[in-house]
Amino acid sequence: MIQQHEIVLPSFSRGFHPITGIIERNLPELPETGILHLFLRHTSAALTINENADPDVAKDLGYAVDKIAPENDPGYIHTIEGPDDMPAHIKSSILSVSLTIPITNGRISMGTWQGIFLCEFRNNGGRRRITATVYR
Amino acid sequence: MIQQHEIVLPSFSRGFHPITGIIERNLPELPETGILHLFLRHTSAALTINENADPDVAKDLGYAVDKIAPENDPGYIHTIEGPDDMPAHIKSSILSVSLTIPITNGRISMGTWQGIFLCEFRNNGGRRRITATVYR
Amino acid sequence: MIQQHEIVLPSFSRGFHPITGIIERNLPELPETGILHLFLRHTSAALTINENADPDVAKDLGYAVDKIAPENDPGYIHTIEGPDDMPAHIKSSILSVSLTIPITNGRISMGTWQGIFLCEFRNNGGRRRITATVYR
Repeated sequence: MIQQHEIVLPSFSRGFHPITGIIERNLPELPETGILHLFLRHTSAALTINENADPDVAKDLGYAVDKIAPENDPGYIHTIEGPDDMPAHIKSSILSVSLTIPITNGRISMGTWQGIFLCEFRNNGGRRRITATVYR
Repeated sequence: MIQQHEIVLPSFSRGFHPITGIIERNLPELPETGILHLFLRHTSAALTINENADPDVAKDLGYAVDKIAPENDPGYIHTIEGPDDMPAHIKSSILSVSLTIPITNGRISMGTWQGIFLCEFRNNGGRRRITATVYR
Repeated sequence: MIQQHEIVLPSFSRGFHPITGIIERNLPELPETGILHLFLRHTSAALTINENADPDVAKDLGYAVDKIAPENDPGYIHTIEGPDDMPAHIKSSILSVSLTIPITNGRISMGTWQGIFLCEFRNNGGRRRITATVYR
């Protein structure tokens, strides 16, 4: 049995932002055992799971992906939407737009240090939409 | 309820190729609500979701992954299958071989600008096989 | 119908380690057709699928991710847990902590050359836990 739900995030600045709480508050009642699938409907942002304890980890993740896909690389052809755009597409494919997470005892079940992050790669990305699918 | 289906793609040249239409034409009738899982059965190619509008994005994605995993790196040990082989394995793990996508109103449901791409990392990769699983 | 199962891996040294056999031996009887979801409950390791034949591929994958997220980058802020820690978080987001794999004819169904790997990014990561979910 499958339930689907659309979640519209608030606007976030460029960077990695913890959204586990927002996701949990916007889901219907979860089954005892199941799977949660989150699908971000955009090509210049991503979803990832990483350390939720020290906020510096999120900053360093942003720094690291900026190095992997730098702005103003003279090799880029697709430059018309600004210097942050093509790097955003590259980072989106590297980190990916979907997550699949176990549901156990009626809750999203991750490891002690894990949290869900929206990775906003644009300077002004606006509100991002996620399709959440729960199956049991 | 689960249905599985094998899709054999045509041969593609090295690069990122839009395959949303091929996938849609080769799926059985989809449920109203569900999930589509695509699994590429290879280790030197990948699947990704990215911008489907400007074909230059696909070219720049190819350029970007070539920089991240360059050919002829003197640090590689596994070189016997040619200079494009080990970089292809690296890119395959970075972008991954599977996608999970919502099905809504009987159709694959992605964002306005999103499309599915085969990422062919070999110079002569041949025909690639995907196992498509639909669950409702 | 969903079944969930926790798998505790043995301690592995830093590097990419084939674990397909361990996973198979620790799963309950699989359905004829279905999906296996593996979720690694950690932020400094990852799961990936790659070539299972030549062990040099795993070595080169480790070399490649060390180059993508090098140690001792002066830009990192989160350095208190040692020089291997922040690079481990970066690699974990790049390769991701979960895999979804088809089940066909009662078995995990991957391509001829594909195997499941634990990517251990810490020098002393200890025993890692995976939540395995099977749905049919």
